[in-house]
Amino acid sequence: MQSHGFAAKAANTPLEPFEFTRRELQAGDVLIDIHYCGVCHSDLHMARNEWGVSQFPLVPGHEIVGRVLRTGSDVSTFKAGDLVGVGVMVDSCGHCGQCHNGEEQYCETGFTATYNGEEKFIGGKTFGGYSDSIVVNSKFVVAVPENLPLNAVAPLLCAGVTTWSPLKYWNVQPGQRVGVIGLGGLGHMAVKLATALGAEVVLFTTSPAKAADALRLGASQVVISKDAQQMESVKNSLDMILDCVAAPHDLDPYLSALKTNGHLVLVGIPDAPHKSPDVTPMVFKRLSISGTSIGSIKETQQMLDFCGQHNIVSDVEVIRLDEVEQAFERMLKGDVKYRFVIDMKAAK
Amino acid sequence: MQSHGFAAKAANTPLEPFEFTRRELQAGDVLIDIHYCGVCHSDLHMARNEWGVSQFPLVPGHEIVGRVLRTGSDVSTFKAGDLVGVGVMVDSCGHCGQCHNGEEQYCETGFTATYNGEEKFIGGKTFGGYSDSIVVNSKFVVAVPENLPLNAVAPLLCAGVTTWSPLKYWNVQPGQRVGVIGLGGLGHMAVKLATALGAEVVLFTTSPAKAADALRLGASQVVISKDAQQMESVKNSLDMILDCVAAPHDLDPYLSALKTNGHLVLVGIPDAPHKSPDVTPMVFKRLSISGTSIGSIKETQQMLDFCGQHNIVSDVEVIRLDEVEQAFERMLKGDVKYRFVIDMKAAK
Repeated sequence: MQSHGFAAKAANTPLEPFEFTRRELQAGDVLIDIHYCGVCHSDLHMARNEWGVSQFPLVPGHEIVGRVLRTGSDVSTFKAGDLVGVGVMVDSCGHCGQCHNGEEQYCETGFTATYNGEEKFIGGKTFGGYSDSIVVNSKFVVAVPENLPLNAVAPLLCAGVTTWSPLKYWNVQPGQRVGVIGLGGLGHMAVKLATALGAEVVLFTTSPAKAADALRLGASQVVISKDAQQMESVKNSLDMILDCVAAPHDLDPYLSALKTNGHLVLVGIPDAPHKSPDVTPMVFKRLSISGTSIGSIKETQQMLDFCGQHNIVSDVEVIRLDEVEQAFERMLKGDVKYRFVIDMKAAK
Repeated sequence: MQSHGFAAKAANTPLEPFEFTRRELQAGDVLIDIHYCGVCHSDLHMARNEWGVSQFPLVPGHEIVGRVLRTGSDVSTFKAGDLVGVGVMVDSCGHCGQCHNGEEQYCETGFTATYNGEEKFIGGKTFGGYSDSIVVNSKFVVAVPENLPLNAVAPLLCAGVTTWSPLKYWNVQPGQRVGVIGLGGLGHMAVKLATALGAEVVLFTTSPAKAADALRLGASQVVISKDAQQMESVKNSLDMILDCVAAPHDLDPYLSALKTNGHLVLVGIPDAPHKSPDVTPMVFKRLSISGTSIGSIKETQQMLDFCGQHNIVSDVEVIRLDEVEQAFERMLKGDVKYRFVIDMKAAK
């Protein structure tokens, strides 16, 4: 089955048109006509082999939405024409403790990534959503509500569920105070989702220019994190903080902002260590610092249903596939509000 | 009310005999005839002003057991002759959120420490258990089971509850695998308590000489933490690790030993930062690093009741009050199995 997309052929060359073979539809598979694919920062890291694990050619893209074209003989959950999404995972072992608990993102042998993962049926690597179609096992396909603008749904498949999962896992309740660090692709989704869950959201940013936007997106307060006085004003006041900044930074001012029993949750992995956090407030306020990785398929579906009910989508800038290199450059400068999404139909 | 004990008069002089005044018995108070007092490492830190907060004269001691001599007019929970204990706290604000939740150890204005705290009735500092008697509000007094050897009960009031509280807070269940780092005053209690709670305990130590003892105390496995191969053998196998080592060390091998959703809980505050922990396994296994401080009065009582039912006490070496300086010196060398306890009657 032929597919057309864009691939990185090497770490130091721009993405370029690429034709490749998808596996034939298996009994459990769904063939999806891709309408939109979000541009995640990890697409850039992988295209440029910044994590040292990329194999080329590499077709990025794991924020995929489109319509079902065909389904395998065993698939009863989807039919042709259904609006669906695919996120960061397209498979997992299916039999470890985590998979049994419906937490495929923590599969003990590692989930199959949507791109640069192992293609189990025809060998080689999986190819992602910077392409016109994809074949995915139906267990890793989610239903997308029909009432939302589809291009703005795409980023929910990664940025959305990555922030939704910790908000649910750490059990954010209406009336709680939730901090969000950084207003980017992840941060702006965290603000929207936590607000819709009934939390009072405090957005931390180094950039005063982002304050108005944060308030528009639902934050009840913006704290300029370089301003010690502003940081002091939120001391001991937050139940949870979602840290959406991957760059190395000092976590101590955020520990100070947490109430007793509070959680600082990191969604990003810095390329150099954060300053070692001060254990003192952790002990005297029983604080936790935790990590979290994307979310399960079940959580992704719950998040999409929730977003359908609350009319929540990402703020996006829609581009053509041949504009993705410019988008990468602008992402590096933080010049995007708040996610680029590729219109795969425009690309044809 | 006159009390006799030992005090540090300055940071650089040995403890010496000291007579001082306890407040008169208030309506809510209990007067306790002290039989034994454990020697906690923090007694040494405070006597030598190593945390910079000590005020002299300073009477250490917050692992106190004895019998009630008299009770104030409002006290109905204890009567003369009752076997009781006092731990690290003798009071708290009583009206903040934490106090209302029965978590006085996290009182938002700070609990009143058993020694070097604010004596609210007669001013000055509170004096601790290296003395023949103490006056404490009955809410901060716990009942001690009669069936246990009393000298070995004393360390339960600090070392016991400090390890009990996190085991309960992080909900250790029978069959779970719990790691304990370090076999000292805290660690040996953690091994005993976690084992009695039905957990399979893995003791991590740098010292092969401690292996036999750890197994005797209930550990099912001992891992020499300097041995990379032994560390590798417990990779991804533990639900929780209680880190009882206050010296700065590398936490990463312990993150590696945790299962997905595991907790590394620190009970000690290092005097220099730990190496900054690697965020990667935290994200990919949703791990938490947390702190914890002693335990509540309610937890202290539950722990003592549990110890009474399961015949759990500390392993102790009983000394006279005039031997405390030698005990400090031996503690500094780790030369104690596993807690010194002062016999206050021998001291007279």
